[in-house]
Amino acid sequence: MTTTTRTPTPAEIRETHTGPTAGLADGYAQANLIAVPRDWAYDVLLFTQRNPKPCPVLDVTDEGGTTTVLAGNADLMRHIPRYRIWDHGELVDEPTDATPHWRDDLVAFLIGCSFTFETALKKENVPLRHVEQQRNVPMYVTDRQCRPAGRLHGPVVVSMRYIPENLVHRATTITARMPAVHGAPVHIGDPTAIGITDLDEPDFGDPTEPHPGDVPVFWACGVTPQAAVMASKPPFAITHAPGHMFVTDVPDTNYLI
Amino acid sequence: MTTTTRTPTPAEIRETHTGPTAGLADGYAQANLIAVPRDWAYDVLLFTQRNPKPCPVLDVTDEGGTTTVLAGNADLMRHIPRYRIWDHGELVDEPTDATPHWRDDLVAFLIGCSFTFETALKKENVPLRHVEQQRNVPMYVTDRQCRPAGRLHGPVVVSMRYIPENLVHRATTITARMPAVHGAPVHIGDPTAIGITDLDEPDFGDPTEPHPGDVPVFWACGVTPQAAVMASKPPFAITHAPGHMFVTDVPDTNYLI
Repeated sequence: MTTTTRTPTPAEIRETHTGPTAGLADGYAQANLIAVPRDWAYDVLLFTQRNPKPCPVLDVTDEGGTTTVLAGNADLMRHIPRYRIWDHGELVDEPTDATPHWRDDLVAFLIGCSFTFETALKKENVPLRHVEQQRNVPMYVTDRQCRPAGRLHGPVVVSMRYIPENLVHRATTITARMPAVHGAPVHIGDPTAIGITDLDEPDFGDPTEPHPGDVPVFWACGVTPQAAVMASKPPFAITHAPGHMFVTDVPDTNYLI
Repeated sequence: MTTTTRTPTPAEIRETHTGPTAGLADGYAQANLIAVPRDWAYDVLLFTQRNPKPCPVLDVTDEGGTTTVLAGNADLMRHIPRYRIWDHGELVDEPTDATPHWRDDLVAFLIGCSFTFETALKKENVPLRHVEQQRNVPMYVTDRQCRPAGRLHGPVVVSMRYIPENLVHRATTITARMPAVHGAPVHIGDPTAIGITDLDEPDFGDPTEPHPGDVPVFWACGVTPQAAVMASKPPFAITHAPGHMFVTDVPDTNYLI
């Protein structure tokens, strides 16, 4: 990072940042990653098509490709803050540079991330508790199953934001206009209705503290492919670490309908 | 058809109709078809992902499957009014029943059709010239190229509707809310700007007559995969005949954002 206090650019964040990316890169879209061998790419692409709420695809690389139209100069092998390396569904490493693990037969999928609509929420005065509390967003595995595709199956993962009750309608309508980054909430209110027993124990990310009158609001989450990797055990996969997103050069408003 | 004058149901249209489907099945989504051998399915799915305006996917069958979640009792081999059979990019037959041509290795893609937003246009008093004139909608090959995917490439195809100038904004905003059936227009006005030289000579469908003050408005069209078949010459494909759509059981409002 430079020593000035100006906001870092997406390229600077990609080059240097190793933590969660919520609240960073205001105004730019962020993306989830899942890269699989070409032999599994059709299953993943069909899985995303059949589950567009958790898996809205923003770009797909050609086999062996490590660049994307979403950020012309970025290297997908090392420009994500933290990666997860998966061997037959088991998490085996969590490096900040995936170059040593990358393979020539990998196809990489970049999937919309809900951090992308947070600037729009903030502009409309919807508070973001996880950003205020300097935490990663909490994410939960639900009891809802994705529609399977080929060899891939697994549950829907959601991110949760506590929203003041009188702003839930606003958060819903703002995010509904951005379907490419998960769109409207999939559930509002009682977490047990979607199989979540304890909001203080997220499956990924950090717990957050509600303010009095806050309601939990749940959005489909791009960690869903990682839950599918755990459930379906493809021989190899590389993903981002939850909350540690690929920061793109694409203005978030490009995904506003 | 029955002898009563009530509107035929989607199932009745699927069973008996052999002509273009514009103006039929008010309130139900219609879909384009492209079915290719499994070996080409990844190319097609990636092509649709990279070209979402002309190719918004509504459903994909499993290999060999001939049913769809879009219409529980429908048989994709025979419930489209008219098919096109393609051999290495050449049109070789145009039957009303594709059963004799279907193969066990085919994967079928159902893609949103702009006929789906015509009920919404009609409700908002936007006239539909092709329906008034009892013609198929006119469709044109443009000079815009799709983003290639694997072995597939080809130009964008558009449908054209003449819209009264003072209603163009309304037609635009109504259709923008339905991205799964092509969404907002890709071009308004001068056809030569997108490589169309003569509106009276459509590449598919029928020419229509403008009223004084009408402006040509162009929407991305689900015949685009057929142009890709012609350009890219996969060994085998089955599509619908342009304008002769698969009428689904899905309410068109399901695709309204």
